[in-house]
Amino acid sequence: MPSPGEFELIQQYFADITSPEASIRLGVGDDAAIIAPREGQDWIVCVDTLHADKHFWADDPADAIAHKALSVNLSDCAAMGATPVAFLLSLSLPEADSAWLAAFAQGLRKLATQHHVSLIGGDTTQGPLSVSITLMGQVPQQQALLRSGARVGDHIYVSGHLGAAAASLQHKTQPAFQQAYRYPQAQIALGQALVGVAHACIDISDGLCADLSHVLSSSNVGVVLWADAIPTHPEVRATFSGDEALRLALCGGDDYQLVFTTDAPAETIQALSQRLGVTLSRIGEVVEAPGLRVLDPKGHDVAFDHLGFEHFKDKT
Amino acid sequence: MPSPGEFELIQQYFADITSPEASIRLGVGDDAAIIAPREGQDWIVCVDTLHADKHFWADDPADAIAHKALSVNLSDCAAMGATPVAFLLSLSLPEADSAWLAAFAQGLRKLATQHHVSLIGGDTTQGPLSVSITLMGQVPQQQALLRSGARVGDHIYVSGHLGAAAASLQHKTQPAFQQAYRYPQAQIALGQALVGVAHACIDISDGLCADLSHVLSSSNVGVVLWADAIPTHPEVRATFSGDEALRLALCGGDDYQLVFTTDAPAETIQALSQRLGVTLSRIGEVVEAPGLRVLDPKGHDVAFDHLGFEHFKDKT
Repeated sequence: MPSPGEFELIQQYFADITSPEASIRLGVGDDAAIIAPREGQDWIVCVDTLHADKHFWADDPADAIAHKALSVNLSDCAAMGATPVAFLLSLSLPEADSAWLAAFAQGLRKLATQHHVSLIGGDTTQGPLSVSITLMGQVPQQQALLRSGARVGDHIYVSGHLGAAAASLQHKTQPAFQQAYRYPQAQIALGQALVGVAHACIDISDGLCADLSHVLSSSNVGVVLWADAIPTHPEVRATFSGDEALRLALCGGDDYQLVFTTDAPAETIQALSQRLGVTLSRIGEVVEAPGLRVLDPKGHDVAFDHLGFEHFKDKT
Repeated sequence: MPSPGEFELIQQYFADITSPEASIRLGVGDDAAIIAPREGQDWIVCVDTLHADKHFWADDPADAIAHKALSVNLSDCAAMGATPVAFLLSLSLPEADSAWLAAFAQGLRKLATQHHVSLIGGDTTQGPLSVSITLMGQVPQQQALLRSGARVGDHIYVSGHLGAAAASLQHKTQPAFQQAYRYPQAQIALGQALVGVAHACIDISDGLCADLSHVLSSSNVGVVLWADAIPTHPEVRATFSGDEALRLALCGGDDYQLVFTTDAPAETIQALSQRLGVTLSRIGEVVEAPGLRVLDPKGHDVAFDHLGFEHFKDKT
C-alpha cells in the first residue's frame, strides 16, 4: 500500500485545473469546497462512476479515460440545459504511475479548459482503477430541462449520429468507432439553447430507446420512431448490415447525444442546428398510447430480438 | 454481469431517503438533481470514496458500511461549520444481494434521517465493492471554518476521545473499538456552534497529528501539544501500554472528531461543551515556530519511531 503521502502528492497533478469563476469561493485543499449562490440560478449536481473494463478499457489511453469520465457528467449537465461550473474527482488507482497520472491530468485539463470548469475537490485512494466525478452546473431558476415534460404531439429530435461508440465493441481498432467511444463530446451548447424550447430532454448513455423510455415513463406518454429517420453514423452504416446498424443506433449506447421533445416549428430547430453547427434529426413523435414503437417506411413495427431492446419494451 | 434493469431496481431501496427541504427542487430520477440557492448561505461540497478492505471490511455489517460512508462526509461538513442538506451515492457492487442492500439502505436511512439529509442522486454499478458519497451542506456566507485561519497564541481543542477506531485494527472484536470503527459520529452540532468561535478547524480522519499538520501548513504556523492533555479513549488506555495508547490517539485516525483553534476564553468553550454534551479538551497551543511538537509533562519532546508520525514530522 502506498504511503498516504504518495497519494497526497497525486493531487499536485490536478492543482491547475481551474477557471476563474466568481461562484467558487474555495477549491481544492480544505475539508470541502465552497460555492456561492448566483442570483436567479439553480445548481444542478450529478455523479457518474466509471470502472475499468466496464465503462472504459483499462488499457485505454489515460487522457481518454479522463475525457470520458468528465464527458459523461458534462452530458448529464447538457441534458438539464445547464452550464457546467465545477467538479470533484474521486480517483481510485492500483498504483501511483506518474506517466499515467500526467496523461490523465492532461486529458482532464484539456476538456475542463474547453468548458471553463474547475476541479474543486475530491480524493485519491489506492484500489481497483475507477473514476468518479461529481459535476455542478448552473441553470436559470426553475428552467432546467427535465425528463417529465414531454407532451402528446411533440416532435422528437436527436443530435448528431448514433451507434459508432457501441460499434467499437465489435471493431475496437476502427478509428471512427474508437474515437467515438473514447472521446464523446457533450452537447453543452445545444442543452443551453434548448432551455425554453424543449419540453423534455435526456442524454443518450444507455442507448436511444432505453433512455427515451425514461422520458416516456416520466412524462406518461408514448413514442413512435421512424426507422429511416434515425441518424445512424455513416461509418456504422458502411460497416454493418442494415438491421445491425439500426440496432446499434437504437440500442447501442455511449453516444452522449441529446434527445429532446418540442412543439417548436421545424424552422426554429433548423435555425438552431445551423447556428450551433450540430446535426438535429427529427426522428418521431410523442403519442398518447404508452410504449415505444419503431416503424419501418411501410408503417410496420420493426421487431428486434436483441435482449436490450426487449428488456426496454417490457418496461414501458 | 447483471442486466441494467437489475441495477436500476437497486435505486428503489433508496427511494425514501429524503427529508423535506426547500432547497431541493428535484431529487433522484433525472439526469441531475436540482438545488436552489438560499439567501445568505454558501454551499459546501465534499466527496469521499470508501473501498472494501481499505476503508472498511468487506464483511462489516452492510448498515455499518453505509453509516461510515455517510459519516465521513458529514464529518467533513462539520469541519466546515456547515449544515448538511443532501447527498449523492455512487455505489459499486459485485452482485445485487437484496438482503445486503436492504441493510445498507437501512443504515443510510437511519443516519440520513438523524441529520435531515436527503439522497438526491447517484448511480449504481457492478464492480468491486466501494461506496462514494458526495455531500452538500449550507453555511452562512463567507463564514465557513477553514484550515487556514489558525493564529499564533490560539488554544487548540479536540472533541471526544481518540484512538479507539485505530485500536480496532489490533483488537477487531473488542466491542468499544469495533463500535468506534464502524459507527463514527460526525460532530455536526459542534461544527455549527464553532462558526464565529474557531479560527481554524479540521476533522480527524488520518490521525490527530496528520490532520493538524494540514492546519499548520495552511495557516503557516506551528503547534505544541501536551501529551498528558490528549484525551485518549479510556478503553485504549486500559488495553495498551502508555506509549502505544498515546500513539493510537495521536496517529491512529478514523476518529472523526473535530480539532480546532480559537482565542475564545476557556469559559466560552466550557459552556459550549456543556450545552452540546460534547467533551472538549484543550490539548496545546499555536506557536510561531513551524512544525508540530508533542511535549511530555517535563517539557521534553516525545519521540515516536512510528512511521506515520515520522512521515508527518518530515512534512511540516
